[in-house]
Amino acid sequence: MYEDIKQKAYEANMLLHKYGIAPFTWGNASECDREKKVFAIKPSGVPYEELSPEQMVIVDFNGNKVEGGLSPSSDTATHAVLYSVFPDIGGVVHTHSVNAVAFAQAGAPIPALGTTHADFCYGFVPCTRELSKAEVEGEYEKNTGLVIAEYFKNTATDENAVPAVLVKSHGPFSWGKDAKTAAYNAAVLEIVAEMAIKTASLGKDDSPIPQHLLDKHYLRKHGKNAYYGQKKN
Amino acid sequence: MYEDIKQKAYEANMLLHKYGIAPFTWGNASECDREKKVFAIKPSGVPYEELSPEQMVIVDFNGNKVEGGLSPSSDTATHAVLYSVFPDIGGVVHTHSVNAVAFAQAGAPIPALGTTHADFCYGFVPCTRELSKAEVEGEYEKNTGLVIAEYFKNTATDENAVPAVLVKSHGPFSWGKDAKTAAYNAAVLEIVAEMAIKTASLGKDDSPIPQHLLDKHYLRKHGKNAYYGQKKN
Amino acid sequence: MYEDIKQKAYEANMLLHKYGIAPFTWGNASECDREKKVFAIKPSGVPYEELSPEQMVIVDFNGNKVEGGLSPSSDTATHAVLYSVFPDIGGVVHTHSVNAVAFAQAGAPIPALGTTHADFCYGFVPCTRELSKAEVEGEYEKNTGLVIAEYFKNTATDENAVPAVLVKSHGPFSWGKDAKTAAYNAAVLEIVAEMAIKTASLGKDDSPIPQHLLDKHYLRKHGKNAYYGQKKN
Amino acid sequence: MYEDIKQKAYEANMLLHKYGIAPFTWGNASECDREKKVFAIKPSGVPYEELSPEQMVIVDFNGNKVEGGLSPSSDTATHAVLYSVFPDIGGVVHTHSVNAVAFAQAGAPIPALGTTHADFCYGFVPCTRELSKAEVEGEYEKNTGLVIAEYFKNTATDENAVPAVLVKSHGPFSWGKDAKTAAYNAAVLEIVAEMAIKTASLGKDDSPIPQHLLDKHYLRKHGKNAYYGQKKN
Repeated sequence: MYEDIKQKAYEANMLLHKYGIAPFTWGNASECDREKKVFAIKPSGVPYEELSPEQMVIVDFNGNKVEGGLSPSSDTATHAVLYSVFPDIGGVVHTHSVNAVAFAQAGAPIPALGTTHADFCYGFVPCTRELSKAEVEGEYEKNTGLVIAEYFKNTATDENAVPAVLVKSHGPFSWGKDAKTAAYNAAVLEIVAEMAIKTASLGKDDSPIPQHLLDKHYLRKHGKNAYYGQKKN
Repeated sequence: MYEDIKQKAYEANMLLHKYGIAPFTWGNASECDREKKVFAIKPSGVPYEELSPEQMVIVDFNGNKVEGGLSPSSDTATHAVLYSVFPDIGGVVHTHSVNAVAFAQAGAPIPALGTTHADFCYGFVPCTRELSKAEVEGEYEKNTGLVIAEYFKNTATDENAVPAVLVKSHGPFSWGKDAKTAAYNAAVLEIVAEMAIKTASLGKDDSPIPQHLLDKHYLRKHGKNAYYGQKKN
Repeated sequence: MYEDIKQKAYEANMLLHKYGIAPFTWGNASECDREKKVFAIKPSGVPYEELSPEQMVIVDFNGNKVEGGLSPSSDTATHAVLYSVFPDIGGVVHTHSVNAVAFAQAGAPIPALGTTHADFCYGFVPCTRELSKAEVEGEYEKNTGLVIAEYFKNTATDENAVPAVLVKSHGPFSWGKDAKTAAYNAAVLEIVAEMAIKTASLGKDDSPIPQHLLDKHYLRKHGKNAYYGQKKN
Repeated sequence: MYEDIKQKAYEANMLLHKYGIAPFTWGNASECDREKKVFAIKPSGVPYEELSPEQMVIVDFNGNKVEGGLSPSSDTATHAVLYSVFPDIGGVVHTHSVNAVAFAQAGAPIPALGTTHADFCYGFVPCTRELSKAEVEGEYEKNTGLVIAEYFKNTATDENAVPAVLVKSHGPFSWGKDAKTAAYNAAVLEIVAEMAIKTASLGKDDSPIPQHLLDKHYLRKHGKNAYYGQKKN
C-alpha cells in the first residue's frame, strides 16, 4: 500500500550514504504521500549497509506510527512537524554533515557568498534560535520542528526558496519536492558550507553576493523561466 | 562530421568527474574546431554517469546551436566568447571546485606562492570584477565571457601563460590547447588554491615567489627550451 | 582458548583501518576477557593488510604476555592500566587520527559544541597533563595509562560517560564495552574533533552546548530510558 | 644489470601514487646502488598509470644518464647531490603534497608538536633558504640539492635523524635507507604537516614537545634499543 514512498525514502537514505554526509547511522530521509497524509522514514539506528525498502516505517503527520515492524528514526517528530507546516514539500532530510554542523555549532547562518549557493537557495541558510530548557525536556524532537517553523513564519521566509535550515547546536535539516531532492539539497548545503568556511578563512571580503546575482542564479534554475537543464516534454 | 571534437569534449567532461572537481552536474568542458569555427560542449544538467559522446552539442562562436538534440550547457555563451577572443585556445572548462570557488567568493586572486603554481601558470590567477546589475540581467553568460576578456585585455595578460581565471562571486574558468589540457588546468587550479588557503592559514610569509623562480619553473615546462617530460619526436 | 577475544580484537583493528583513523600501523585495538583477566591486542608494527586473528597477542592486566608468537603493540602497557582502573570497559583503542591529534598537540580538550558530540560523550573530551621527564624515561607506556587514570580520578569523571581522552602531545585513547565500541568511539571522536576545529575557525560563538541539551542527547542514546535505535528483546 | 634498483625505484614511485601525495606526475622516487654509485629514478612526465620498472632511468652521482631510453625526472640533479652528500641514504623522494607544500610556501619549518612527528623525525622538519637569482638561473636542480646540503652542514643536523626537508617556495624532499622508506617518510611528512596546520588553527599552545618526549618516541622506534615492531631474526 505504501510501497512507492517506502522505495523512494529508501533510495534517498542510500543517497545520504553515497554522498558521505551521514556517517554511521546519523542521517535520515523521508518521503511523503500528501493524499494519505503519511510519510515513510528510516528506522532508527539501522546501518545503511543493512537497510532495505521494506524496513521503512510509515508515520502520520502527528508522528504516530501507522505501519512497520521497526521503530522510526528518533527525529521522526521533527519530520512530521515540517510536513504539517510546509504544505508543498514531499521530502525531508536530516544529517550531521561536518561543515554544516560547524555552522550550527557556532549558531551562525551560512551566508550566500556565491553562485553555487544561489543555485540552490535564495539567500542565506538560516540558523534557528536555541531551544529552551523546557522545549528540550519536553517533546524535544517535535519542538525542534516547531522552532524551525517559528523561524520561517516570523521572518516570512519562503521554505520553497530556502530549502534548508540549521538547528542551533545540532545540525541541518533540508527538504524539497521529494526525498531525493531533499537529499540533494543536504549534499549541496554541505558543499556551500565548506566553501563558506574556506572563504572566511581567507580573511578577505566575505559579504554576500549582490541581490541581482542571487536573483539571476536562483531564477535561472528555479523560476518559471528557468533555463538550466533539459526542457521537460 | 563533428565526431572528433564530440569525443574529446566527452572525455574532458569525464575527466572533471574523475578529478572530483565538478560535483553533481556542476562543470562543463568544450573542445573547439578552429577550422569549422564550432565547439562541442556538454548538454545542460545531464549527470556524468549518463553522459555519452553523442550527447555533446555543437555550437558556433556566437553561441548558436549548430547540431545536437539536447540543450547545451547554460554556460555555453561564456565558452563562445572565450573562443572568440582567445585565438589560440582549443578547450574551455568551467567548474565549481571548492577551493577555487572560495577565492572567487572572496573576490581575491590566487597568489603564485610556489613552484606548483608556477609550473602551470605564469603569475597569480586573476579574479574578474563583479558584473554590474545590467550585465547580470542582460546576456549574463555572454557578459561573463566579456568580463573575463576585459580583464585580460586591460591588463595585457597573456591568456596562453595564465590559463585560468576566477569570475567574482562565481567560480573558475580554465582553458588550454584542447579540452583535456583545460581540464588538467582546472584540476591544478584547485590544488594550488588549496595550497594557498593552507599557506595563508599559517599566518606567516605569504608573499609571491620571486620573479626568477617563477620564470624558471614556468619556462622549464612551457617555454621554447622546456626540458620537463619526454622530448617529442 | 582465547579465540573469541582474538577474533573481536582483530575485527576492531580492521575497523580502525576501514574508518581511516589509523594510517600505516599507527593504531591498536584490544578486547578484554574480564573473567580470565587478559586481553587480546594487535601485534606491534604489523600492517593491517597482513593482519590475521591468530596474530593477536594475549596479555594480562600487568602487561605481561600470556600467549602469542609476536610482540604486542608498544602501547600494550597503557591498555593494561586502563583495564585495571576502569572496571566496566571491555575494549580499548589508540589511534593517531589527525583532528584528535591536533587537539592533543595543542594540549586542549575537545569542547562539547553540539549534539553530535553529546550523542557519544557526556561533556568535553579531556586532555591529560604532560608526563614528567621521569615518567617518560621510566615506564612510559604504563605511565601514560596512569596519567589518564589520574585525570579521571582527580576530576571524578565517569569513564563510562566520557569514553575517550587525549594524552597531551600524543593522541587519543578511547574505550567502551567492547573493542568494536571503542573503535566506534575513536571514529566519532575524530569527527567531532574536525567539527570543533571548523567551528573554531569561524571565529564566532564556540561555547559548549547548554547542559539540558547535553543531558537530552546523551541520555536519549545511553541512559536507562534511551529511545534511539531498536529495542532489544 | 640494474634490475634490482629499477624494481625498487618503480615500487616506491607507485607508493607515492597510492599514498595520494604525488598528484598527476608530480613526484619522483629513486633507489641507489652504493657499490655501483648509480641510482634508478622515474622518467620525467610519465603518468603513474603507464609506469613500468623497465622505464626507470639509471643515473650516476654527477647526474649523468648511464642507461635508459627515456629522459630522467627533471629533479634528477637534486637526487644526485643528496646521494653524494648523505653517505648512508639509499632512497630519495620528492613530492608536491599539499600540506607540506603549504609550509614550504610559507618558508616555515614543520614544528615537532607531537609524538606522531617524533616517531619519524628527530626534531622539526627544516625549511631551506631561498635560492638566489644566480642559483635559480644556473644549475637550478643541482643547486636545490646544494642548498639542502648547506642547511644540514651549517646546522650540524644529522640527515639520518631528520629524514626530510622543505625547499623554500617549492616543496618537500625526503630520504631513507631505501626508496620505500623515503616514500614512507614523504607520506608521514604530509600527515604531520596536516596535523601541525590544524593545531596552529586552534590558536592555542603550539610549542614543540619537550625534549624528553621527543627522545623517547624517536628512540623507541629508531635507536639501538628500539622496541617498536617485531624483532628481526
